Amino acid sequence: MTRRQVVIVGAGFGGLEVARELSDADVDVTVIDKRNHHTFQPLLYQVATAGLDSDDICHATRGIFHKQANARAMQATVVDVDFEAKQVHTEIGPPIPYDALVLALGAVTADFGVPGVAEHAFGLKSAAEAMQIRNHVLGNFERASRSTDPAERRAATTVVLVGGGPTGVEMAGGFAELFDRVLDRDFPELAAEPARVVLVEGQDRLLGAFGSTSGERAERRLRKMGVDVQTAAQVAAVTPHSVELGDGTLIETDTVVWAAGVQANPMAERLGLETTRGGRVVVDEHLRVPDRPDVFVIGDLAAANWTDDELVPQVAPGAIQAGARVAAVIADGVDAHDPFRYKDKGSMATIGRNAAVVEFPNGRSFGGFAGWVAWLGLHLVMLVGFRNRANVLVNWAWNYLTWDRGSRIIIDMDADTTEL
Amino acid sequence: MTRRQVVIVGAGFGGLEVARELSDADVDVTVIDKRNHHTFQPLLYQVATAGLDSDDICHATRGIFHKQANARAMQATVVDVDFEAKQVHTEIGPPIPYDALVLALGAVTADFGVPGVAEHAFGLKSAAEAMQIRNHVLGNFERASRSTDPAERRAATTVVLVGGGPTGVEMAGGFAELFDRVLDRDFPELAAEPARVVLVEGQDRLLGAFGSTSGERAERRLRKMGVDVQTAAQVAAVTPHSVELGDGTLIETDTVVWAAGVQANPMAERLGLETTRGGRVVVDEHLRVPDRPDVFVIGDLAAANWTDDELVPQVAPGAIQAGARVAAVIADGVDAHDPFRYKDKGSMATIGRNAAVVEFPNGRSFGGFAGWVAWLGLHLVMLVGFRNRANVLVNWAWNYLTWDRGSRIIIDMDADTTEL
Repeated sequence: MTRRQVVIVGAGFGGLEVARELSDADVDVTVIDKRNHHTFQPLLYQVATAGLDSDDICHATRGIFHKQANARAMQATVVDVDFEAKQVHTEIGPPIPYDALVLALGAVTADFGVPGVAEHAFGLKSAAEAMQIRNHVLGNFERASRSTDPAERRAATTVVLVGGGPTGVEMAGGFAELFDRVLDRDFPELAAEPARVVLVEGQDRLLGAFGSTSGERAERRLRKMGVDVQTAAQVAAVTPHSVELGDGTLIETDTVVWAAGVQANPMAERLGLETTRGGRVVVDEHLRVPDRPDVFVIGDLAAANWTDDELVPQVAPGAIQAGARVAAVIADGVDAHDPFRYKDKGSMATIGRNAAVVEFPNGRSFGGFAGWVAWLGLHLVMLVGFRNRANVLVNWAWNYLTWDRGSRIIIDMDADTTEL
Repeated sequence: MTRRQVVIVGAGFGGLEVARELSDADVDVTVIDKRNHHTFQPLLYQVATAGLDSDDICHATRGIFHKQANARAMQATVVDVDFEAKQVHTEIGPPIPYDALVLALGAVTADFGVPGVAEHAFGLKSAAEAMQIRNHVLGNFERASRSTDPAERRAATTVVLVGGGPTGVEMAGGFAELFDRVLDRDFPELAAEPARVVLVEGQDRLLGAFGSTSGERAERRLRKMGVDVQTAAQVAAVTPHSVELGDGTLIETDTVVWAAGVQANPMAERLGLETTRGGRVVVDEHLRVPDRPDVFVIGDLAAANWTDDELVPQVAPGAIQAGARVAAVIADGVDAHDPFRYKDKGSMATIGRNAAVVEFPNGRSFGGFAGWVAWLGLHLVMLVGFRNRANVLVNWAWNYLTWDRGSRIIIDMDADTTEL
């Protein structure tokens, strides 16, 4: 092999962008991910709230590269990188040599040491976790419908979402609609005791990364939908059947979803790379690891500078822009490029049917139905692959026209044998 | 409550038909199933072969009865029936009283005592099993692509289907197409060693329940697709990495799907009901348990007479016809009805792209593209729920036009955490 070997670890937005942008370069590209698919994380909350199938937001990574002759994908778990020998070691098979390595491992849920979170709360970073949440909530409603114990019924039909960022806000809206419009009709037995969605945020307003107008818009809208929004509230502990807040308040619930924060994938520290805030890897202005000009880090894993005191935010556009830049540096050499600079293109979060907040970098914002249509269009365009788009459209159209949620299916992959 | 209480156990084709046909009757209907959804079993093989999402063929049972005022559904596992007190006991909640009880528990996979089947072979009766097969096969291809051991590669890319009935034939066609048209492009690393589909049937031809023309058609077609069809071959044992045939032949394989037979749900015996061939419950000519005129048995669980020496076949139309009849008997009384008589409307099985066999009761049959179109139309019409139909259509159209399989996604619901 005389062509340069580019190895990308992680098939998220950033990793895929690097591979795609190298399609005309004179290199061989290998994308390694521990899953066999790309997960469209912005829509995970819709799988958790029974609006979409998991397959709608997952796309087989090998399939993505059918038409890119110089790229291939593999499912493998990276166990080590030998930076001297320039080889990636995986759990099976021979080591994979590289000339340039791109680490795009993303972020994982961070519990900030709050007791009980790791044991009793759900994260929302993978399709499996989204399906676990869906199974758990639907199963709890079934159990509640047959219970004669009011306390058990209450805990089983209460969902607490921790973290008032876009994920928490979107999930709160999704659950409120699922409860009010679908499960309400599915479970007439529970009519006397309405299901409850609680959104807990530590700061004094929602959507801290947005302007205050958007945060207020979202809170107003969620309250109107019946969500119990608790701002300036800390979570002190999570148990199997409750959440304890910092002021001693106890919320009885069997379901806690932790969307309060992320940290960079701890793999970076295991590889011996220098990390900073949130476990993110220190990189130079070309997204390279210091003293290792052939190792790049992008996306949620990278501590790339944005402004003097801020890092590039851990959002999809940050990963995509960094991925495109790294591809260009690999193809043309570092001297052909200015230092990487993240360009904020705005933010959006949907709050439910017909409502979203959209914010531009200049501070202008809008919401309501126009915001929702903008959100819908952008996410459809972003979804990888026609088929997924078509299916998502069918599911969304069905949900919109009928208020139904077709995916409220409990699939227990272990316990479900054919015997009754 | 003064209205008569009808309790139906099992939300398959038969159980749902009873409930639907009672929509205008002066009764309350309760449908109990251990899952929260109806599974459209005829298309399970498409989930196993990555053509459809599991949610496409599952429909939330509670949702099915949104528009039927006198019916409700619940997810519960029946643990006992007190025939004297007329109560159904479930794993949680108070017992459920009935005036009429319909047992529609279906069938489970039968291993006929062949060693290793229970431990090492997959059944195909639930969406969870279909997803397990899909995960397992796709994961094996990933492993094979990184293995340097030819024997390991061979076993990992060989699928053995046992049983040449419609399920085995349809799965063989589905896997052959998945391997030849999709995984072939996904795994160029495996080009030297083509994946293999083996269909093992004990009788001397496929589709024993069909006429010999259909069986020969199916075998010809499958061979043309590259399937290794082995008729008159018994399976002697299954191990984790092989299948041993009766003549001593050893097939190295990591994947065995057992579609060689079913038996009635063993719940019937646990309930103390009299059973006959295949564990099916003895019923009178009105599908009632002898001496218990308020207990009906339908579908795969019932030993209903068809001809002098044949029982009603364990297929969807048998369950649906029996369900409709039982509903009528419950509504009008038994004296208003002749003995139940199953009406054979023919059979069909698809063999892959553009090919199916269709057989009428008079023995006439056709196949090829016309058969496939007939099969497609019938299954779309039968699928419960518009949304599922629309999604299935999108997926099928996509698969047909592109030879792709969008659902080749491995979702490991236990091991899949967010950490790489």
